[in-house]
Amino acid sequence: MSIAPTLPQAAPLSTPPRLAVIGCGLMGGSFAMALRAACKPRGWTLHISAHSRSRASGERALELGIVDEVHPSAAQAVRDADLVLLAVPVTATEATLRELGPALPSQALVMDVGSTKRDVVVAARAALGAAAAQFVPAHPIAGRERGGIDQADATLYQARRCIITPLAENDPQRLQRAQSVWEAVGCRVVHMSAEQHDRTFAAVSHLPHLLAFAYVNAVSQQPDAARHLALAGPGFRDFSRIAAGTSAIWRDIFSANRDEVLEQLSHFEAALGQWRAALDTKNDAEVARLVDAASAVRTHWTLNGATPPTDDPA
Amino acid sequence: MSIAPTLPQAAPLSTPPRLAVIGCGLMGGSFAMALRAACKPRGWTLHISAHSRSRASGERALELGIVDEVHPSAAQAVRDADLVLLAVPVTATEATLRELGPALPSQALVMDVGSTKRDVVVAARAALGAAAAQFVPAHPIAGRERGGIDQADATLYQARRCIITPLAENDPQRLQRAQSVWEAVGCRVVHMSAEQHDRTFAAVSHLPHLLAFAYVNAVSQQPDAARHLALAGPGFRDFSRIAAGTSAIWRDIFSANRDEVLEQLSHFEAALGQWRAALDTKNDAEVARLVDAASAVRTHWTLNGATPPTDDPA
Repeated sequence: MSIAPTLPQAAPLSTPPRLAVIGCGLMGGSFAMALRAACKPRGWTLHISAHSRSRASGERALELGIVDEVHPSAAQAVRDADLVLLAVPVTATEATLRELGPALPSQALVMDVGSTKRDVVVAARAALGAAAAQFVPAHPIAGRERGGIDQADATLYQARRCIITPLAENDPQRLQRAQSVWEAVGCRVVHMSAEQHDRTFAAVSHLPHLLAFAYVNAVSQQPDAARHLALAGPGFRDFSRIAAGTSAIWRDIFSANRDEVLEQLSHFEAALGQWRAALDTKNDAEVARLVDAASAVRTHWTLNGATPPTDDPA
Repeated sequence: MSIAPTLPQAAPLSTPPRLAVIGCGLMGGSFAMALRAACKPRGWTLHISAHSRSRASGERALELGIVDEVHPSAAQAVRDADLVLLAVPVTATEATLRELGPALPSQALVMDVGSTKRDVVVAARAALGAAAAQFVPAHPIAGRERGGIDQADATLYQARRCIITPLAENDPQRLQRAQSVWEAVGCRVVHMSAEQHDRTFAAVSHLPHLLAFAYVNAVSQQPDAARHLALAGPGFRDFSRIAAGTSAIWRDIFSANRDEVLEQLSHFEAALGQWRAALDTKNDAEVARLVDAASAVRTHWTLNGATPPTDDPA
């Protein structure tokens, strides 16, 4: 495990992928639009097949021209594909892979977009057996509070990081192909283990979401909630933005990554205890020290400002 | 106490104020620039005198043309003023008012910009005695993580709310004048008691700051902090933005409003306890319920979207 400056640049896409998208929501729809846009300057016409558990979403994707055909099953959608993007809730990963597995061409690359990775790795191995070698777990750091195919956007992945957590059974060519695909839609790729991924995102994504939800719960449970909220300003707006997430997504993330979230929650409870002690004892110097410590870290942080870590696959 | 649709519109400024600004930082400098800009279309040339505890800030304000003269004492700066803006740390309020009190013209209106109000009211009465009737406590909801005269901006107060917490001894004409001044620099004015102000801002500003500080403390105290922070995304960016505040400001706010902040912290600890219990017991349905409750509130909230409450002065 080391902090490496960059991964070797993957060779650019050399052949037009035959793409199948399973799940026609924000993530899958945006991926289809972005890959189509990336193929255009190369003179390639991308054919995109799709399946969606929600018939309405599939029909809407077709109507918007985001996909070219919609199939009633995941198996039918993937049978001619050489690139499959699984964009379903993480809890649906195993069932979906079981369904499409028998129809999956043996050369196809399969990737997901899930926010947790250890559970997805377990699901892929359980569902695909030896064919798990075709599955490269991926987590593009992109999204919106509100999902759905109508929010799909060809630029969603532009300049975002995509974490790949390779399996030991993935061969180098398949990893190269995976990296080229994410770079084609605009991402910068970082490799790490599924374990490290889940620990890091518990710290920088799942815990902040939990705190934002709990904070809004705390304010809104008070008798004076309406008065308080009417006067909330830009600080409140930014701090609580992520509390607008949906339970369909967040219940699964907290369930799949419960142990790491609880570990991060313990770190936070300890830090909050320092604050309570400082306030309870009227220790203004300690309050100032805690503010200075946080402020120094946050002032120097910038989005994509530090070289991301990379490490060997687990 | 009632939720009133709007306050009566104050008469617009009818005479050019002779302004004295005490404290040449972001808030004072921006106020001077904004009031000068508001006077220009009326053909009024505003003369602005100033004092700053920091000689460098005063000189810089002069150099930037934000103020017209800088005095070595607050008393000298206010002696010809009919409008005095106190833009100093809240803990300096009493000493500053004691210093300028003897030189204050008897018709002048004095206002502050502090983030807490009960302590400012106590300070004003202690320092000014009967002349506290000239002091109208104010809190414009505007600011930046980084202060200083070089950040001063004529638009800082545009479309922001300004809370006025009138004293029983303020007469209606002075309150009208106070409201006209804040409206002239672009604010929408809300009246409430100092007690209600401090309770509401503990809930929607001071507690979120405390949580953002504690969260950054928690992440940065971990051995893996550098790795975590390098991969943090837009959710982290917005959630932790307010953790870049400075201890000079926040130590004073937490000190002045300690009881209300502790009350809000208790509400938060109770809400966080609901989250810990749901995770500890693997109660996914309860996690979903907590997410849905927060998300419903946050999705419907918009900045300045609700009619602010107003109530009688304390």
